[in-house]
Amino acid sequence: MPQTRALLFDVFGTLVDWRGSLLDEAADLGSGVDADWAAIVDDWRRAYQPALDGVRGGLGWRDLDVLHRGTLAEVLGRHAVALPAEDEERLVQAWRRLRPWPDTRAGLVRLRSRHRTATLSNGHVALLVDLFRFADLRVDAILSAQLADTYKPDPRAYLRAVELLGCEPGEVAMVAAHADDLVAAARVGLRPIFVRRPQEWGPGGGGEPPTGLPGLLVAEDLEQLADHLGC
Amino acid sequence: MPQTRALLFDVFGTLVDWRGSLLDEAADLGSGVDADWAAIVDDWRRAYQPALDGVRGGLGWRDLDVLHRGTLAEVLGRHAVALPAEDEERLVQAWRRLRPWPDTRAGLVRLRSRHRTATLSNGHVALLVDLFRFADLRVDAILSAQLADTYKPDPRAYLRAVELLGCEPGEVAMVAAHADDLVAAARVGLRPIFVRRPQEWGPGGGGEPPTGLPGLLVAEDLEQLADHLGC
Repeated sequence: MPQTRALLFDVFGTLVDWRGSLLDEAADLGSGVDADWAAIVDDWRRAYQPALDGVRGGLGWRDLDVLHRGTLAEVLGRHAVALPAEDEERLVQAWRRLRPWPDTRAGLVRLRSRHRTATLSNGHVALLVDLFRFADLRVDAILSAQLADTYKPDPRAYLRAVELLGCEPGEVAMVAAHADDLVAAARVGLRPIFVRRPQEWGPGGGGEPPTGLPGLLVAEDLEQLADHLGC
Repeated sequence: MPQTRALLFDVFGTLVDWRGSLLDEAADLGSGVDADWAAIVDDWRRAYQPALDGVRGGLGWRDLDVLHRGTLAEVLGRHAVALPAEDEERLVQAWRRLRPWPDTRAGLVRLRSRHRTATLSNGHVALLVDLFRFADLRVDAILSAQLADTYKPDPRAYLRAVELLGCEPGEVAMVAAHADDLVAAARVGLRPIFVRRPQEWGPGGGGEPPTGLPGLLVAEDLEQLADHLGC
């Protein structure tokens, strides 16, 4: 097995707690709307993949702010919740203010000590820059599926990141809390690393690692991953 | 004038001392070749723009390692210097081990406190990642003309960086020690900031700011620029 030279990190759910952060933002809206925000936020997140399918299917690349505006309006309508326009936009912008998981900041520092590190997110570069400034997170490069004009799990997203890091696919690991991301990355030759995030969808609401994926490494968090990789 | 939200930094010459660093590498080559290394290094750097012209002219994008290999072989031949292949490659790779100017590291930290910061270099992302790790420099994003499949001063290089940062051109400043870079950036609406680097080509060998460029700001170094921008 070639040496792992670079680590690519999924962001939403893997490095930051989108659900808890968005629920706090919703509770704090000036309009003080009484609604089942947990259901709304979860439905909003579930509307994400179908929205990306349109882009991957060739509708033309649009950034996550644009997609989030459309899906939020649809989900709010479904829940019969009317928000002032500024509150809707505040929720869209809240994806730039997501809290890291407790191990994320220190884990990234340790992992960066022995590997090149970069994001590989469906978030666009501008959003990721703002989020990493807000959350005080550091990687060597902010990479995004945007740089391939597509979204994960399109194989071009992974291969563009590998190319930009000057590596071969086998020298790069994809770190994610989502099985589909790792299956797609492994299919084009990246090393899959699953990080458990049991709180991603609320208590007990984490995904399971993919089954039967050769070479899969599973870590409880980024600190344990750093231990495992000798950082 | 719109608020400046982001600063783009040229790298070679503006943030790091390519000449002094390459001369030290040449003096340290295992083969110990006696040659006029100052002349060779300067000629190597001068061969850079003509090599980029080929790419900008449509020969297809190639990274700086490839261009540097070709131009180094040509310049060494012109100086009748024969190096072992591993020494030639060591010099090509030395562009990943360039020293920052004394004010660069602290200046970038201060400037980042109030602005989004990114590189905008003709170096490719992989080279810049390695260089910033070596030099212990931090910006929010490693951007490169590579992301527009071109080289500066092609206007697409600047506009792609502005787009990736989610800004309008007037919200972004280009920081460089080279007049042509700033003239090109200003032509597409960026704010030009000249930083003096009087040692770039050896003692007294720095470029002069462009003349007659509206809105030009001139700083002696990054610390003075941070003072000026209130960072």
